This record gives sequence, structure tokens and C-alpha cells, in this order.
Amino acid sequence: MLKHTIQQAVKFSEVDSLRVVWHGHYVRYFEDGREAFGKKYGLGYLDIYQHNLAVPLIDLSVKFKKVLEYGDDAIIETRFVDSPAAKLIFEYTITSARHGHVVCTGQSTQVFMEPLSKELYITMPPFMEQWKKTWNITGA
Amino acid sequence: MLKHTIQQAVKFSEVDSLRVVWHGHYVRYFEDGREAFGKKYGLGYLDIYQHNLAVPLIDLSVKFKKVLEYGDDAIIETRFVDSPAAKLIFEYTITSARHGHVVCTGQSTQVFMEPLSKELYITMPPFMEQWKKTWNITGA
Amino acid sequence: MLKHTIQQAVKFSEVDSLRVVWHGHYVRYFEDGREAFGKKYGLGYLDIYQHNLAVPLIDLSVKFKKVLEYGDDAIIETRFVDSPAAKLIFEYTITSARHGHVVCTGQSTQVFMEPLSKELYITMPPFMEQWKKTWNITGA
Amino acid sequence: MLKHTIQQAVKFSEVDSLRVVWHGHYVRYFEDGREAFGKKYGLGYLDIYQHNLAVPLIDLSVKFKKVLEYGDDAIIETRFVDSPAAKLIFEYTITSARHGHVVCTGQSTQVFMEPLSKELYITMPPFMEQWKKTWNITGA
Repeated sequence: MLKHTIQQAVKFSEVDSLRVVWHGHYVRYFEDGREAFGKKYGLGYLDIYQHNLAVPLIDLSVKFKKVLEYGDDAIIETRFVDSPAAKLIFEYTITSARHGHVVCTGQSTQVFMEPLSKELYITMPPFMEQWKKTWNITGA
Repeated sequence: MLKHTIQQAVKFSEVDSLRVVWHGHYVRYFEDGREAFGKKYGLGYLDIYQHNLAVPLIDLSVKFKKVLEYGDDAIIETRFVDSPAAKLIFEYTITSARHGHVVCTGQSTQVFMEPLSKELYITMPPFMEQWKKTWNITGA
Repeated sequence: MLKHTIQQAVKFSEVDSLRVVWHGHYVRYFEDGREAFGKKYGLGYLDIYQHNLAVPLIDLSVKFKKVLEYGDDAIIETRFVDSPAAKLIFEYTITSARHGHVVCTGQSTQVFMEPLSKELYITMPPFMEQWKKTWNITGA
Repeated sequence: MLKHTIQQAVKFSEVDSLRVVWHGHYVRYFEDGREAFGKKYGLGYLDIYQHNLAVPLIDLSVKFKKVLEYGDDAIIETRFVDSPAAKLIFEYTITSARHGHVVCTGQSTQVFMEPLSKELYITMPPFMEQWKKTWNITGA
């Protein structure tokens, strides 16, 4: 399974009045993970734009397990989930660097869209087929 | 069904380089809706704090349907979903004021926690039972 | 002096671990004020875009006087500051609705830029001269 | 002069519809720099809290020079500005990693406050005198 992990300090501005990371920031943490994954594996937004595609989210889910506090680091693991559908699916696990426990998990689904016409791809775009071959992803 | 609707302009800072509201902001829109619902029906964070309770999210899901652009207003409908469990469940529908179409939908689940001990309630807290009676919510 | 005032509730996500609005959010509050001013007086970003202009900030200053807490409303006053220079200058005063005291003040300066060439205007663009006439602003 | 530099990728969510980092995010970039400086030199918020002090901002100014685009990295330099007053002053310079030019500069001023009583320090708190000695800062 193709995955990538980053670690980043919790910022003061991300912590709410209960002294824990505000839940909405995890959605950005997921994107932080996705962007780092994309940079590593050549699947970043800018790589995708070069193929005249945007990849808007259609679905997002988050399960919050434990809190994350200021002074701690978030370890964000992003995993590529292979699918035969014309979709880009990632799973996420955020762990507390200090305590080792899982803070939250999530999943996102993106589709391939031609930016100007806003038309969606029904089948996997050729560059994604090529990308999967490059990384030896042989299908679900 | 108990529900509340607010309308607010899309802010310049919420719009991304594709000229649409960045997906993560909808999580805040949901909280905007939830806070307005709470203010209307006496179920705001501050009302709940008065009963020595916090209500952290444990689950969140969003389905993105259409984009929302700068210059448009978001109409955010927040609906209370009754449940016999010791949970606070809301559903959301965000609509474009200009186009009338649904932009996204979502659902959130919160639990009742004693802030100091971090202990969760297994059964519905008494004040919530009372709150349901006040608003004639008779159970699922 | 041309000015406009809006009032908006402090959001839970804007409050930091010291239980007051995080200082960086006031920059967005200023833009909230500026956008509402623009909508009222026909000087919004979209109005300006119609004249093929963008108005990037070149200067921003904020003085923080008092804190603003969750449960309170921010009253944001935005004042147009006339200037013979090819600049768009606004002053801001944010007041606590509950306590009546000034929370912070600020000033921003924007310039007129042709979006594609990124060239700046040395003199006031014609549409701004017209806009000033419309609102009887006769010069500094 | 005591200073510290960090480098971080521009995030997709930080870029506005003009395809450049939205101006308000630089205020967070400054805090990112300040937090990293604090972690390096033992002057972080948590270090300061240990001395029963909070350090709210009273003044912030930003000068925007050039834009910063998605795909680029921000190089954030944070400099401690010594002062005999009971204030914590930092200067910031943000540079584009790709182009080498200065994107923006800024300055912030914080005061020392006893968190419960909200009383401000008129003179430099003892721990700051000690901190300055530790780092051989001999006064303005």
C-alpha cells in the first residue's frame, strides 16, 4: 500500500478554548498529508493540473478518537486506496507524537474534473492509469 | 423536526484558487449553523457548559455536491436528529442562495463529556431530557 | 466620512486556549467589514474586478486594546479614508457589543493593480474618481 | 541579533482566487516563525506559561511586497528585537524560496500579562531578564 507520513507541531492558533485542536483543523491536516503524499509520489495538485484536471472532493468522513494538545506534534499518515472507479481515495490516520494514541481517522474521495467544462471523468484518466503502473498498483 | 436556517455571504478568504469555497470551510459552516441553532433553541456551547458538559465531536461526514462561488450566499440549514443514545446528532444542508441548488450535505455526532474528568455520559444527561421535553421531542 | 458597521457573533473556532478571539482573526474581521462596506457602497472586490482591477494590500496595522470573548458579538466599523494617492485606505474599529469597549483598531492600504500584467496604477483609476463623485467625496 | 528561520510549503487552502497566499495568512506565518523561535530559544508560549505569564499582542504591522504562489515555499525569518521596555518585540521577513525575493515584512509587540488578574507588567519580568542573560543580550 502506497503511503506517506509527515509530522508537524500543533499551532497555537489551531487550539480552541478547551485547549485541544479544533475539530475542523483535522480536515486541513488531511490535506497537509495529501499534499505531502502528492509531492512525494508525483500526484500533487500541480502535477494533476498539468494533465488539465482538477480533483474536487465529493466525500469526506472523520472519526475523532482522542484530543490533540498544544505542545504535541501530529503524525499524519496518508494512504492511497486503490479503486477501479474514476476516483481518488485516501485514508488518513493522525497520531499523537507524545502519547502514541490515534487522534482521528478519516477518508476522502475525489473525482477527476475538466476544470473549464466542469465535466467529470466516468473512467480513470490515462495519466492515472500510467501513474498506477509507475507505482506498481495493480488494481483492487 | 427542529431546525434552523441562516444565510451568510461567502467571504473572499474562503475561496480557493479554483474560485470556489475551499472544502474545509464547510465544516466551519456546519458549526456556524449549529451555533445559530443552539442560540435559537437554548442548546449553545455556553448553555451546555452551564450544565458542566462539553460536547466534542466523534463523527463528521460531508458530501460535496456543487461548488459555491464568491458573490453568492450560503444558506445553511441545521436539523436536530433525535436519538435515544447519549449523543447529539445534527444534519446539515447548504444551499446556494443564487442558484438554489444544494452545495453540500453533512452529519455530525457529538457526545456528552464531563470536561475535567473527560468521562463520557453513557445515558442522556438530565438537562438534555429536559431540553427535549421543552421542545416536544418525543423520542425516536 | 463614508463608513459602514456590521455586527457578528464570535465563533467557537475563533477563540483560542486563553478563551479570547485569536489575534489573527481580526485581520479577517477587517476584511469582513471591508466586504460589507464594498457591498453597500458599490466598491466590492467584484465591482472592482469589473473594471479589470485587483486591489492587493500593501500595508496593514492592528492595535489590540482589549480581548473579545465567546458569547459576545464583534461590532466592526469600517471607514473609507480619502487620499489623493492611487490607494484605497480603510480604518477599522472593532467594539465589544456586550461591554462597549474598543477591542482593536486598524488600518489597511491597498493599491490598484491590473491583474494580468501585475502593473500598478500610479494615478487614481477613472472608475475610482467616478466612485468618489458618486459619494460626494471631494478630496483630502 | 537572535534570529531563527523556518521553511514551509504554501498550502492549497492558503491560496486565494488570485492564486496567491491570502494576506491574512501571513499573520499566522509570523506566529509560525515566533513559535519555532520560541521552541529553539526556550521562549515558547508554554515556557512563558510556566512563569505564570501570557504574552498577548498589542501591536502588529505587515508590509506586503510581493505575492507568494502555490508550489512555492515560504522562508520565514523571525528576529528578536531587544528593548528595555517590558515588551516582547519580533521582526519578520518572509521570502519566496523559489524566487528569492522578499514577500512581506512585519513587526509584532507583545506585553507580559498575569493570566488570572489580567494585570500587565510595567517592568521586565525576572525570567525575561534571566533569559536575556542566557542568550547574551545586553540591552538596547
